[in-house]
Amino acid sequence: MSLSAVLDTIDTSLPQATDRLLDLLRIPSISTDPAFKGDCDRAADWLVAELASLGFEAAKRPTPGHPMVVAHAGTTGPHVLFYGHYDVQPVDPLNLWDRDPFDPAVEDGVIRGRGASDDKGQLMTFIEACRAWKSVHGTLPGRITIFLEGEEESGSPSLIPFMQENAAELKADIALICDTGLFESKTPAIVTMLRGLAKAEFTIRGPNKDLHSGMFGGIAANPLHVMTRILAELHDDTGRVTLPGFYDGVEELPDTIRQQWQALAFDHASFLGDVGLSVPAGEQDRTPLEMIWSRPTAEVNGLWGGYNGAGFKTVLPSEAHAKVSFRLVSKQDPDAILPVFEQWIRDRLPADCSVEFHDVAGSPAGIMQIDHPAFEKARIALSEEWGIPAAYVGCGGSIPIAGYFQTYLGMDAMLIGFGKDDDQIHSPNEKYDVESFHKGIRSWARVLDKLM
Amino acid sequence: MSLSAVLDTIDTSLPQATDRLLDLLRIPSISTDPAFKGDCDRAADWLVAELASLGFEAAKRPTPGHPMVVAHAGTTGPHVLFYGHYDVQPVDPLNLWDRDPFDPAVEDGVIRGRGASDDKGQLMTFIEACRAWKSVHGTLPGRITIFLEGEEESGSPSLIPFMQENAAELKADIALICDTGLFESKTPAIVTMLRGLAKAEFTIRGPNKDLHSGMFGGIAANPLHVMTRILAELHDDTGRVTLPGFYDGVEELPDTIRQQWQALAFDHASFLGDVGLSVPAGEQDRTPLEMIWSRPTAEVNGLWGGYNGAGFKTVLPSEAHAKVSFRLVSKQDPDAILPVFEQWIRDRLPADCSVEFHDVAGSPAGIMQIDHPAFEKARIALSEEWGIPAAYVGCGGSIPIAGYFQTYLGMDAMLIGFGKDDDQIHSPNEKYDVESFHKGIRSWARVLDKLM
Repeated sequence: MSLSAVLDTIDTSLPQATDRLLDLLRIPSISTDPAFKGDCDRAADWLVAELASLGFEAAKRPTPGHPMVVAHAGTTGPHVLFYGHYDVQPVDPLNLWDRDPFDPAVEDGVIRGRGASDDKGQLMTFIEACRAWKSVHGTLPGRITIFLEGEEESGSPSLIPFMQENAAELKADIALICDTGLFESKTPAIVTMLRGLAKAEFTIRGPNKDLHSGMFGGIAANPLHVMTRILAELHDDTGRVTLPGFYDGVEELPDTIRQQWQALAFDHASFLGDVGLSVPAGEQDRTPLEMIWSRPTAEVNGLWGGYNGAGFKTVLPSEAHAKVSFRLVSKQDPDAILPVFEQWIRDRLPADCSVEFHDVAGSPAGIMQIDHPAFEKARIALSEEWGIPAAYVGCGGSIPIAGYFQTYLGMDAMLIGFGKDDDQIHSPNEKYDVESFHKGIRSWARVLDKLM
Repeated sequence: MSLSAVLDTIDTSLPQATDRLLDLLRIPSISTDPAFKGDCDRAADWLVAELASLGFEAAKRPTPGHPMVVAHAGTTGPHVLFYGHYDVQPVDPLNLWDRDPFDPAVEDGVIRGRGASDDKGQLMTFIEACRAWKSVHGTLPGRITIFLEGEEESGSPSLIPFMQENAAELKADIALICDTGLFESKTPAIVTMLRGLAKAEFTIRGPNKDLHSGMFGGIAANPLHVMTRILAELHDDTGRVTLPGFYDGVEELPDTIRQQWQALAFDHASFLGDVGLSVPAGEQDRTPLEMIWSRPTAEVNGLWGGYNGAGFKTVLPSEAHAKVSFRLVSKQDPDAILPVFEQWIRDRLPADCSVEFHDVAGSPAGIMQIDHPAFEKARIALSEEWGIPAAYVGCGGSIPIAGYFQTYLGMDAMLIGFGKDDDQIHSPNEKYDVESFHKGIRSWARVLDKLM
């Protein structure tokens, strides 16, 4: 009975909840750009006030960068920590937006504005669930810590030190993270596998200056040729990555997960069709869902050298540059793979060429502990709200926070989110469906009801 | 006797000749930049006045772009046409110049300023030779046409139409072109082989927009991977170009030229060492001079795609771009090679990728007719001036004008120039040695004496 009262309150107060979200969206908290430092601070203040109004003991906590917001409520019972981030991506190119990204509005069932989905709309689903619960019950459902970051879109430089310094305060029974999406924009999903990331930028140098290809073409080493020959070897003809030992630690899917994924009947034709493709281009002996969730990859993210302006310049360039990243799964170790990659490139350099690496870093994959009892409870709660069995899914991208909770706080994490594939996060015209927001709030009320 | 009087006059009037060159160098006739249109016009006017003062019937001749300067003198005897260009390259990056590029000066034996070598200093060597001849003899040595272009550094858009429209007026017994250099900065040289050029820019497309490599990495075709695999195949392991039929029409060197080139004892270690290299990287069964003069090449001049800014963006880009050019020799046909190249790329595209070509164009190699009697006369004249046997050399770059004279006017061309390897043409701090200028003027006096 009490849950249904909370859900009813959520339904009737949706306009007010939406207005509050629009207020937060008006604050241009772009963390990567120092010009918006004051706005990041203002977003943190706004959230502290919001949480205090719900009875949380809430504070803005300084870091060398943008502040954290930490709030506590309750002293007994199960203890959950909720994580979200209040900072947003830059908005350029501004001319591709149909409206001012920081003048948000509800348009035809979507909430439009920078951060609507990533992550202000998502984090507010949890806060609004708390508000509805409080208004029905007079108290929150148990012991809740809310932990909001302001640097997620700029590499989270303060996150690990802050977690280490405040480990005792932040440790809970489980972390709830709301920064992911529905499966195929309709099936509620709990992410249980997150790919890790290893990355390296490098420069191959040949001549000590740009040369004229008329004078030197045919005798001088061209770093662009060296670069293409090396990168062309990164995959074999079946799509496998050729680095020695790259697949060490890659595990096959457990049967239960494999069966669940088969049941999802992933529509890869539509997934690829939406971006103008039709043929899965990865490892030829793997299913499409494996390709994007549970198999490692190597991708060239950027490549440049020589002349790229209008017309022709018959230059033989002195340098070629590339940015390459690897998505990692299971127990692949970035600290083992990256040095192998560097040596693999050095081994392929011809005489007269040298290579220099920059920005070499990695983080391992995250594997959630689905035998933790919270997972099954949350899965049932989500299934009830959405009327579709919720799925344990993978996530091709890297959400390092989940691994940090495990590593630095010894706490399992559960990733539940309500974003849709067309939310345009990090792009112009970002939006969050009113359905995502509304049913997201209801979902958290149901999850809290089961967990607490 | 009369030649030595001319040479003496050249020696004694060098300061005045240098001052005249400095006057011309002060005019910023950058043809590619519309802001300097008036200056190009002014440079043409300056040359018309200079030539008129020598008794030439000289005129600025309009084109849809910058004007030509055409001047005639004499009505009988052998008829030579002299070609040079009065326009210059842009000067950026300006901060790398040690002085204002258009405030030229003589510094420690070099004339410093934009255009000093390319091509104002070189074209003035011929005009000053005419001046000295005139001052000694009262007339010019024979029938001379001077043809100066103002668009050489911006693709010569008006050149072919102008030559076609004025073919009867411009046709002479031979064309003299002064836009090349000494061999190894010391041996006088007549260029008898010019490599041609075929070029193509192309874009390989995969997804219809940039993708997130977390979401799509491992399933979506990455155009940068496609690009690197294709370009890596452009050469085999011995440095040969792999395009079918690419070597059709490539001829072996005549024995006489091969022997002369051997006698030049080309110091390739120093040639490569100056640019930080040590190993000839081209076709492994060819000599270094063949690699740069008489063998065709394929070079990637530019390559770009994905993210190239600071830090990392794990983008899976929708497009990859390249600019590729081929240096052509002997009878290689650019109109045969370019379609083969396009098809060769199409044949290597995987499913879901497409390619689009831009800026596809070519011109064949130029082979000078060294059995024309003017060649041996000029070779002897140059050998006498420099005290070193002059050489018939190749030129790795493309100087299309020589081919145009053959094609459109049925006239052989002889390329003689006095530039040095360190003249920094097209770069900051361009210079022309006073020695190049002085002995260049003397060289032309001797060549005219032999030819006329």
